[in-house]
Amino acid sequence: MGVGGISKRIILGRKLRSSQLGETLLPKRIALPVFASDALSSVAYAPDEVFIMLSVAGVSAYAFSWKIGIAVALVMLTVVASYRQNVHAYPSGGGDYEVATVNLGKSAGITVASALLVDYVLTVAVSVSSGIQNAGAAIPFVQGHETEWAAALVALLAAMNLRGVRESGAAFAIPTYGFMAGVIGMALYGAYRAANGTLPDVESAHLHLEKADGYGGNISTAAMIFLLARAFSSGCAALTGVEAISNGVPAFQKPKSKNAATTLLLLGAIAVTMLMSIIVLAKNMGLKYVDPNDLSRLREANGDPLPKGYDQHTVIAQIAKAVFSDFTPGFYFVLSTTGIILVLAANTAFNGFPVLGSILARDGFAPRQLGSRGDRLAYSNGIIFLAAVAIILIVAFRAEPTRLIQLYIVGVFVSFNLSQLGMIRHWTRHLKTETNPAERRKMYRSRAINTFGLGMTAVVFVVVLLTKFLAGAWIAILAMIVFFLIMKRIRTHYDRVEHELKIGDSDPIMPTRVHAIVLVSKLHKPTMRALAFAKATRPNILEAVYVGFDQEATDKLLEEWDQRRIDIPLKVLYSPYREIIRPIVQYAVEIREANPRGVVAVYIPEYVVGKWREQLLHNQTALRLKGRLLFTPGVMVTSVPYQLKGAELGKEREDWELTRLRPGDVRRGGIDR
Amino acid sequence: MGVGGISKRIILGRKLRSSQLGETLLPKRIALPVFASDALSSVAYAPDEVFIMLSVAGVSAYAFSWKIGIAVALVMLTVVASYRQNVHAYPSGGGDYEVATVNLGKSAGITVASALLVDYVLTVAVSVSSGIQNAGAAIPFVQGHETEWAAALVALLAAMNLRGVRESGAAFAIPTYGFMAGVIGMALYGAYRAANGTLPDVESAHLHLEKADGYGGNISTAAMIFLLARAFSSGCAALTGVEAISNGVPAFQKPKSKNAATTLLLLGAIAVTMLMSIIVLAKNMGLKYVDPNDLSRLREANGDPLPKGYDQHTVIAQIAKAVFSDFTPGFYFVLSTTGIILVLAANTAFNGFPVLGSILARDGFAPRQLGSRGDRLAYSNGIIFLAAVAIILIVAFRAEPTRLIQLYIVGVFVSFNLSQLGMIRHWTRHLKTETNPAERRKMYRSRAINTFGLGMTAVVFVVVLLTKFLAGAWIAILAMIVFFLIMKRIRTHYDRVEHELKIGDSDPIMPTRVHAIVLVSKLHKPTMRALAFAKATRPNILEAVYVGFDQEATDKLLEEWDQRRIDIPLKVLYSPYREIIRPIVQYAVEIREANPRGVVAVYIPEYVVGKWREQLLHNQTALRLKGRLLFTPGVMVTSVPYQLKGAELGKEREDWELTRLRPGDVRRGGIDR
Repeated sequence: MGVGGISKRIILGRKLRSSQLGETLLPKRIALPVFASDALSSVAYAPDEVFIMLSVAGVSAYAFSWKIGIAVALVMLTVVASYRQNVHAYPSGGGDYEVATVNLGKSAGITVASALLVDYVLTVAVSVSSGIQNAGAAIPFVQGHETEWAAALVALLAAMNLRGVRESGAAFAIPTYGFMAGVIGMALYGAYRAANGTLPDVESAHLHLEKADGYGGNISTAAMIFLLARAFSSGCAALTGVEAISNGVPAFQKPKSKNAATTLLLLGAIAVTMLMSIIVLAKNMGLKYVDPNDLSRLREANGDPLPKGYDQHTVIAQIAKAVFSDFTPGFYFVLSTTGIILVLAANTAFNGFPVLGSILARDGFAPRQLGSRGDRLAYSNGIIFLAAVAIILIVAFRAEPTRLIQLYIVGVFVSFNLSQLGMIRHWTRHLKTETNPAERRKMYRSRAINTFGLGMTAVVFVVVLLTKFLAGAWIAILAMIVFFLIMKRIRTHYDRVEHELKIGDSDPIMPTRVHAIVLVSKLHKPTMRALAFAKATRPNILEAVYVGFDQEATDKLLEEWDQRRIDIPLKVLYSPYREIIRPIVQYAVEIREANPRGVVAVYIPEYVVGKWREQLLHNQTALRLKGRLLFTPGVMVTSVPYQLKGAELGKEREDWELTRLRPGDVRRGGIDR
Repeated sequence: MGVGGISKRIILGRKLRSSQLGETLLPKRIALPVFASDALSSVAYAPDEVFIMLSVAGVSAYAFSWKIGIAVALVMLTVVASYRQNVHAYPSGGGDYEVATVNLGKSAGITVASALLVDYVLTVAVSVSSGIQNAGAAIPFVQGHETEWAAALVALLAAMNLRGVRESGAAFAIPTYGFMAGVIGMALYGAYRAANGTLPDVESAHLHLEKADGYGGNISTAAMIFLLARAFSSGCAALTGVEAISNGVPAFQKPKSKNAATTLLLLGAIAVTMLMSIIVLAKNMGLKYVDPNDLSRLREANGDPLPKGYDQHTVIAQIAKAVFSDFTPGFYFVLSTTGIILVLAANTAFNGFPVLGSILARDGFAPRQLGSRGDRLAYSNGIIFLAAVAIILIVAFRAEPTRLIQLYIVGVFVSFNLSQLGMIRHWTRHLKTETNPAERRKMYRSRAINTFGLGMTAVVFVVVLLTKFLAGAWIAILAMIVFFLIMKRIRTHYDRVEHELKIGDSDPIMPTRVHAIVLVSKLHKPTMRALAFAKATRPNILEAVYVGFDQEATDKLLEEWDQRRIDIPLKVLYSPYREIIRPIVQYAVEIREANPRGVVAVYIPEYVVGKWREQLLHNQTALRLKGRLLFTPGVMVTSVPYQLKGAELGKEREDWELTRLRPGDVRRGGIDR
């Protein structure tokens, strides 16, 4: 291991192999944190969005905050109820993609897949941005450099996932349960202090909040409704990540579906509790919260503008600071668990992305190599792509969750809607054949739940579209369309190839004879081995072929050939212009033309060294030649490797690449060698 | 051809194949411009450097300008005389590298090679910077953005060379002869106007030139000598590129050496004439010229500072403007040919680089693939490396030729010195065996010339080192050391491998049997072809092997296998974790272990599509598998390609890559298919 390897090890921890994982089917108490971090973490930013939207109409509008909270909670519980049907009906982990594909067809399926891809990118961007924003409340030097910190954090996450970081139950359980305990503990302690009359106001309570331009005086009912609708759809950010469990059913312990459904219910209940706690606390503690780009609407009580460099802390930070005004560790606990769970949520995307990729690859919508383990390149490219786009978004939107969220929710609701619609079709189809009355009753019930779910999510989707389209959702929709088209084209290509490759009625023609040529560049061990191997295959004709640049070297080789009494004829192809590949290809084509029913077998001796930078010094011409010969019909190319000392090193590297842990391995379930 | 191809064609002109070149041995009248552009172009910046250095001691020091010019001319003629010996003694085009290697050993050879590599980079940086500086005199919008323009120009040159731009005689002849005609015409017209008394002063003549800090009052003789030495060594920039002809002897028409020597003499005479013309004109036309970073030393005649944004035009531009004050086209002609010849000089480096690379590769000091045509990657990487480093230098030194030249000259003189030293050894060695008195006389004469040359260049080298080391030459020396060490290491690696691969006394063991396995992913035409080809080789055992992820697909394949009555047994390797590569490698290892004297032949069906982005969708797993199997002893891997419709496209692309014209092809001589 070179210095590079050691420094990587220091930075990124020990390399991991999937074979070290052991049995990883998850009990509910571990599955909840593994799959819930995404959904719960949105509690950290959803309330902020509600207050930002309402603030437009002034403090009086904050009266609506808890009503909007209840509306969001209602949608949340409906969605949870709906997804409980999904996990029973589709326990394979295909999630919304599978539901849509099976029931609504391929196009619906890849629409969902496109939405999920966009969501993964946004999960990273939003979660990390929000995490950094929260960190800013506790760590002063982050303030004012949020973009840089957020981008760096995404890069770090990408690096960890490129290296193969183990998603372990404990890594999720501790911060997730910590976050729950922190927020709910904060709520309880706040309630206790409120009952005692000692609950302090938050730091922004004394500020004066101005209405936004155009909202002065009495505003029309239509404007107010639009405003409430926007606040509601922003609050629906709390729903992101709820669908994650439906993709993770195979990772649950048995009975998988039942456990997943229970976990889902738990998740919903906890998320709603936390969301409502935060909203109610914020309202009662006098929070004033505006769009960070509109800070001038906040003024000191005496009307003076805020001091320069004033930092508006997140809602959760303001509440924690006030509630734990007499117990600072509480504040730091809530804030740090919030930050960690947001990072975990971002990491979720890095793990979900390859899982989705392998499902899409299986169905021919993504490059096929994503479907099997072991393709380092495909995995790495996926992670780098995810991180790069997330960083672009973070930079473009200056790591402001408020602005990123405008892009976020539309994708989630595309999935919700198509999934519920698919479920209704599913039950209807099964009702046609099912005869058992008990089963039929259950199916009717499920269908009713999904129908209600669809109605609810459809309304929300329309609200989201209307209120967010111009604010940024169009970008997400555009990206979905692009992903959709790419997937369609990949599938079309695979279909075309498959059609072309279908075996016809005519039997394949057996080649009548094999003409083998062994390429010789020098007379050394690899050449001798290639000659021996080629001879062992007993071809009809066997020749060695040498491409000669100058007479001197050619004569020397011929002499050595005679000296060693090699009983294979050596043919010299002269190449005055130092070309290697063309003369060989031409010779192969000539042989083939002379005997069209024969096959030309080209043997290339290769030597294998250990370090990749040494490998660059060898076999490059062989590589290029092989690439060219692929286009020559009737030719097959055989590499005869010769392993040099040190090749072990390369083998170990390759083996590690094959067996290492990859993002998504845990939630795919069942890596248990 | 896609849109990309078309737009590239528009930007970069028609693709060229080397086979379109025809006979390209160069007559003297064409060889002169091809090889002289580098040397002549330095006339465009060398005088500027002399005047900048002298200006430090005030206008009075300008009296030394023509004396320094004569000193430089003397060195130039000495070097030319020396190199005339080189081209006779070493007509193979190896140039200084060959002379040093043959006579002084490998280390001297790669020292020269390192110096040349550094010089190529600096040729690009200096020439382009100077070209842009000259362009600034005629094109106002370039002023103030020299760095950006210079970097863009280097990028453009790199793009053209990546694409394969033909170095044609005409492309060199017209601007080079134009430049000669322009400068010499300017000198003659200037002389004519001087004789008439109508020669105007240059634009900077009326300015007041202040001495630099520390040079006020009377300066010591030592300081004055140091100053003159610096001016002289800066003026020696005019010598860069003189050695180019010695690398290009094979491209000359016969008698090659004689023609090359004559061309060299012509080149020297022309360069000296041009250099002296410019210096004398500048002196007599009252030029005031300072370091562009020290412009404040120039003042208006009344002592006022220069107007803000004053642009100090190059010496050649100032002279041309004044001489052709009554004939503006003359000014533009001189300036544009100057600009073009500087760009040609930069392009020279892009052409010389691969030639040097192939010579180094032949000797094992550079990756071997550089030694043969057809390795696109190696060539492209070389060009990109050259351009990238040149751009870094341009940006770091803000495209100021004055500062870049501090790095430039040391490398040139390293080559000069080692080359002359080698030549002396060469003659001494030959004198030991030569008996013909006429030949001996010639050799004595040649040795005397080289000895004088060495004495001269050694003195200049010391002067350059002393005056330039801290000003930037240390960077060039450091870079040379790095190149030197890399080349040493590459050679050591190749030597080690060669030693390890040497055939011992024991005969290679003939494998007793061949166990062939054909990998099957589906039952389609490529699989059938691979089975047929494998069968044609009549191995001792032949099996088809399938890696199964799930029972359903496996059963389907087995059924189809039976239906088609394929008479080859199908073995299924189960892989619950969707791994493909490991089970196959393990199976191959098992077979080999069971029969250590046998060989395992793995046949992989591959399908070949036309477009590279389609290729990304296929065979990636095959590629990775092949990479892994290389490390497995006793295994050979055979690709059986199946060409799909559209594969023609890919073949054409590959063929074009193999036959296209590459930088350096012309000056290597003899591409005459």
